[in-house]
Amino acid sequence: MSKESMTIIVFSDDLDRALAAFNLANTGASMGLDVTMFFTFWGLRVIKKDVVARGSKSFMQWMMGKMKRGSAKRLKMSQMNMLGMGTSIMKSLMKKYRMPSLPEMIALAKEQGVRFVACTTSMALMGLAAEDFIDEVDEVAGAATYLGLATEGKVNLFI
Amino acid sequence: MSKESMTIIVFSDDLDRALAAFNLANTGASMGLDVTMFFTFWGLRVIKKDVVARGSKSFMQWMMGKMKRGSAKRLKMSQMNMLGMGTSIMKSLMKKYRMPSLPEMIALAKEQGVRFVACTTSMALMGLAAEDFIDEVDEVAGAATYLGLATEGKVNLFI
Amino acid sequence: MSKESMTIIVFSDDLDRALAAFNLANTGASMGLDVTMFFTFWGLRVIKKDVVARGSKSFMQWMMGKMKRGSAKRLKMSQMNMLGMGTSIMKSLMKKYRMPSLPEMIALAKEQGVRFVACTTSMALMGLAAEDFIDEVDEVAGAATYLGLATEGKVNLFI
Repeated sequence: MSKESMTIIVFSDDLDRALAAFNLANTGASMGLDVTMFFTFWGLRVIKKDVVARGSKSFMQWMMGKMKRGSAKRLKMSQMNMLGMGTSIMKSLMKKYRMPSLPEMIALAKEQGVRFVACTTSMALMGLAAEDFIDEVDEVAGAATYLGLATEGKVNLFI
Repeated sequence: MSKESMTIIVFSDDLDRALAAFNLANTGASMGLDVTMFFTFWGLRVIKKDVVARGSKSFMQWMMGKMKRGSAKRLKMSQMNMLGMGTSIMKSLMKKYRMPSLPEMIALAKEQGVRFVACTTSMALMGLAAEDFIDEVDEVAGAATYLGLATEGKVNLFI
Repeated sequence: MSKESMTIIVFSDDLDRALAAFNLANTGASMGLDVTMFFTFWGLRVIKKDVVARGSKSFMQWMMGKMKRGSAKRLKMSQMNMLGMGTSIMKSLMKKYRMPSLPEMIALAKEQGVRFVACTTSMALMGLAAEDFIDEVDEVAGAATYLGLATEGKVNLFI
């Protein structure tokens, strides 16, 4: 192990939690940490393309995907959603304070070499295939890959 | 410390989070890690027997227990519950992909030597006693026991 | 690094999660760990004064603050809220078992030297300034400060 490292499991698709995860990942990368983000369960939605074709999915998987349509652009906050008002107020405040949006934070993470891994087990459950993800995703892997990295990591978070 | 170890605090009784916790615990154990799971707050419900007698509980504790009736078999997902439809679709998909159910994952964890600890502080609040838990539970203990293990752990997660 | 340390990110303002965070922080401090708590996003509400003046905030920030009025005294549980009944039953059970309330746990944490840090990035989003926090808060800082401590920490949790 040459460099200190950090792993983040992104389990949730709440906008607020995704922002927290990417803020930590980007700050860590800028400080010289090796950062890996594991997207699992609802968190897969953060790295999903905006439109997913039905393809060869079973009806149930496709329905599962339908119910959770959307991508990083469409996530909502975990609280105060109130017909989207909380989410749009927050997006306005982020713009006002010149904070990067979630899609911008994803691009910045890739630029800084943050590694994106999609969890294979969850992909089957959520009806998603490798081609449904944005190009920034490096790898599709399971819990053993995660634990191999986490046992070497200085900081491991489940968000 | 002879063997590398991992601790997982299971705080939630969402089916999806419980599945993630057991997937990590079982993968860790199969990789040779010493794994301890601490069940606290709503997470106690994951290791509860399906029926809990009133016994000597106070009315308030008993009511607290009533409100959160159920066990690993009855947990629901944190999202998309829609009258149980999301949860049952996911259970179907898990069966289709031959993934173990939560009760099967609990049994597998015990077979592999994963240690189950129930949090004493939360038990009082949730109106639960040691005899309300499934036989797989090894120990009833508090935060000091958890921290003693976590300070030696390579990976510590709060799920 | 002289002493073993622990960091806790308090992201949520659910009463149950805040209680879990302070129980771990206080137990850790009593065992001799250096403990730092980072309050971010909704978690800032745990360390907020009960009344926050409009001051020089923009209308949107002020509205954001309004929507999330309150402090440690007013937090609610993540589940079973049912018009506050779950929360008040739990508060009664805590009193009955002579467990400290959340404000008492905050005071105890400070007595034991637990460090409270408020996240700068979130403060702008939530429309909060340094003077909106209780006096127990030691510092206002960002993710880099957190990661500096977490990479040295034995236990790092995101709650």
